[in-house]
Amino acid sequence: MTEDRKLARLQERLADVDDLKKTATLLLWDQRVMMPPGGSVARAEAFASVGRLTQERFVSAEIGRLLEDLRGLEESSDYDSFEASLIRVTRRDYEKATRVPPELVGEIRRAAALALTAWGPAKDESNFEALRPHLEANLELRQRYVECFDPPDETYDLLLDDYEPYMKTAEVREIFDELKRELLPLVREIGEAGDVDDSFLSGEFDPQRQREVGLEVARRFGYTDEQWRLDQTQHPFMSSPGFGDIRLTSNFRPDDLSSLFATMHEFGHGVYELGVDPSLARTPLGTGVSLGVHESQSRTWENLVGRSRSFWRFFYPRLQEAFPAQLGGVDEETFYRAINKVHPSLIRIDADEVTYNMHIILRFELEQELIDNRLAVRDLPDAWNARMHEYLGVEVPDDARGVLQDMHWAGGSIGYFPTYSLGNVMSVQIWERAREDLGDLDERFEHGEFGDLREWLREHLYAMGRKFTPQETIERVTGSRIDARPYVRYLREKLAPQPA
Amino acid sequence: MTEDRKLARLQERLADVDDLKKTATLLLWDQRVMMPPGGSVARAEAFASVGRLTQERFVSAEIGRLLEDLRGLEESSDYDSFEASLIRVTRRDYEKATRVPPELVGEIRRAAALALTAWGPAKDESNFEALRPHLEANLELRQRYVECFDPPDETYDLLLDDYEPYMKTAEVREIFDELKRELLPLVREIGEAGDVDDSFLSGEFDPQRQREVGLEVARRFGYTDEQWRLDQTQHPFMSSPGFGDIRLTSNFRPDDLSSLFATMHEFGHGVYELGVDPSLARTPLGTGVSLGVHESQSRTWENLVGRSRSFWRFFYPRLQEAFPAQLGGVDEETFYRAINKVHPSLIRIDADEVTYNMHIILRFELEQELIDNRLAVRDLPDAWNARMHEYLGVEVPDDARGVLQDMHWAGGSIGYFPTYSLGNVMSVQIWERAREDLGDLDERFEHGEFGDLREWLREHLYAMGRKFTPQETIERVTGSRIDARPYVRYLREKLAPQPA
Repeated sequence: MTEDRKLARLQERLADVDDLKKTATLLLWDQRVMMPPGGSVARAEAFASVGRLTQERFVSAEIGRLLEDLRGLEESSDYDSFEASLIRVTRRDYEKATRVPPELVGEIRRAAALALTAWGPAKDESNFEALRPHLEANLELRQRYVECFDPPDETYDLLLDDYEPYMKTAEVREIFDELKRELLPLVREIGEAGDVDDSFLSGEFDPQRQREVGLEVARRFGYTDEQWRLDQTQHPFMSSPGFGDIRLTSNFRPDDLSSLFATMHEFGHGVYELGVDPSLARTPLGTGVSLGVHESQSRTWENLVGRSRSFWRFFYPRLQEAFPAQLGGVDEETFYRAINKVHPSLIRIDADEVTYNMHIILRFELEQELIDNRLAVRDLPDAWNARMHEYLGVEVPDDARGVLQDMHWAGGSIGYFPTYSLGNVMSVQIWERAREDLGDLDERFEHGEFGDLREWLREHLYAMGRKFTPQETIERVTGSRIDARPYVRYLREKLAPQPA
Repeated sequence: MTEDRKLARLQERLADVDDLKKTATLLLWDQRVMMPPGGSVARAEAFASVGRLTQERFVSAEIGRLLEDLRGLEESSDYDSFEASLIRVTRRDYEKATRVPPELVGEIRRAAALALTAWGPAKDESNFEALRPHLEANLELRQRYVECFDPPDETYDLLLDDYEPYMKTAEVREIFDELKRELLPLVREIGEAGDVDDSFLSGEFDPQRQREVGLEVARRFGYTDEQWRLDQTQHPFMSSPGFGDIRLTSNFRPDDLSSLFATMHEFGHGVYELGVDPSLARTPLGTGVSLGVHESQSRTWENLVGRSRSFWRFFYPRLQEAFPAQLGGVDEETFYRAINKVHPSLIRIDADEVTYNMHIILRFELEQELIDNRLAVRDLPDAWNARMHEYLGVEVPDDARGVLQDMHWAGGSIGYFPTYSLGNVMSVQIWERAREDLGDLDERFEHGEFGDLREWLREHLYAMGRKFTPQETIERVTGSRIDARPYVRYLREKLAPQPA
């Protein structure tokens, strides 16, 4: 076989694998959004089978051989070329995937499925003990997973790598130390400046109306019926079960307006996936590069755009029109301050832009202690509660609103949380670069124009897909490595109390 | 390996295959009901990949070997046992599947996909020539398909077998000849008796209201939110992407009440699938036995129940309540006659219970002429129009309302149509047997009670799944072979003009 033929062959094999992955994505989306509950047993089986087949086909000897045979082509091709990127990125995925015995992969999946099933009731009943054995099993399996690899600098590196490839725990620690140093005082300053009234954000808000308003915003951003849909789920998420097929969900809660921000957040994930260069479709390069970079985009559209003054200059009159009884008497500035209120609280997903990061740092620290056996699972609630008090001055009344609030650990995901704050940090670096290139974005936003920003992001970031490492990707967009300072500056400028 | 271990192994392999099939079912359902149009290119790829993988895994050497090794177990087991049925039915599927080279399977699928894409516009523009080359390609591929098998009595036998296993063309011809002999005069008699007023069935009928009414009927029949859903599509269909997960669609057209009957029809398909014994799930036995038997159940719930006097005795007041302006002044008997009006017309799916069969017989005859090269594709429109005139006295004004009206031939399905009328025939045989066992069903229907009928059908028919051949299945339910006479008798009793 010629090299060209081998490359084509590799692409065919990888396209099969990608089709199966997209199919698994649909199985999950459908399960969460459309499936009648009676289908859940059969769906679990189908999902497991498709997962197993995907793994089998990816770690095949044929793909391994092709990757070896294509070393020459990779070396003779430009680093940025499709060919070199495809071989390079696939080889790393392949080397990681083949390290882990299929039985262990199966055990990890099974344990996570069981733990997720237990998590819901445990949370509802605030019963940590009901989840504890599952968390212990997940943790033990993660430790066996880690042992499949060469010893890293820190054990946590290997977990992090699954969500933020190439990122080291030490780098994250440095960034998070800076956040802690800067944000803890900021939270205090804001607290001392007195309370902001946001009472009008609670009340009766017709869910159907919220959906219409959310869609109106999303359409302004770039949502079209041709390539998108928007549904209701309890936990908002974005899913792309095929190139050119972007599905958002939001939770249109009848008693607040949080769905608006969730819709903008998920839009950010969606527009990233949609912006990946179509030539990368059906390859391992055809998706966002990491969870952190993905989150940078959801936070861009939710916070940098969606909680900005200029956005609401345009959109607030429309929101008032949609909810005249609730917002007719609230002026724009009062509304703007309310949606940007900083206030320590119990629940991560409801947290403001500043304190959100403290929720993440707490989890990042506990995860390391768990995986290094410095903290036992049974002591986790106490450790959680102590740190909530230390960082945010908040007393945790029960585990439902404490250590049981998130599903990540039950799902076996350890090392995932830091990507949320890394996303926050990167979002502002990218944003500053976009503003350098595009000039005054606020004026555009005030006129409801978001196309220039979206196109800039597509061209400079989204299109790359997974061709480069996350760090390379960020450097190509911003010219610098990941750096917390712009983010801290942004938070302070936007949210620090103004001298009266 | 022991025989037990081999059987378990076979079941595991078949469960994988079944999971993939169910996954493909979801890919299709989603495409037709939920997917934004932008996803269609990626979806076509994913669907093709999953289809190819399913085929690959089914025709594997391992399954072949296991089937050979399990001949002893099959022979030593009771014919009715799960084990013997599983091995017997799987072997037949396997032997058919391995006859056809994967490349030909791929070509058939590809040609059908292209033809289906061309069919929509060709129909919209009533342009047969635009579809002709595709039909020729499909036909030629079907002829190559036939050549993969030992020569049958009639070529058409092999096509029919894919939809109605073991049924021979000669048997169908005999049944259809009887239908022709009996129904043509009946159509004439009815025509001579004068027109029935059904004008009130056209008008404005709020689609949302229709959906509510359709759901109310379906819930009476056995639909639950736990295991079912009901959506809108242009062409109604039933899909089961997993055991215990039944999805109906109906077309809630704003200008008539046809959605009601479509909902009942699809309910019949759904309740059959749902009634298959759960122990057969994830095996080749875990679904309805043939298209004909399936159709017998959709027609049972649509026609034998849904167009009966006793059903409307219960339900008509409710329908009048839902549409008081349209139906408030129409009495029950007038409504009953209108929904049972017999009148020759152009479109199969809109045809009444009697003339429907003539639409099928026409297609059955043309299909045989095509596959035997007695009719060229280019002469198909003329042949169609001539036979429509001969059988129904109807002049076809254009191909859109003639030969282009159905998607089956474009989809490569030749041999499918006869199963519709076979279903009609079998429905009454099964129905008569149910009434023998259950006594007066009408009284139950008049009180809105359908559970006894549903449970009888589940126990005596649905539960068997694919354990036996369609003919065996019908014989087990009714005690006799497929027989057109009960059906003809039913039509005559219900629909022949009454002496004044």
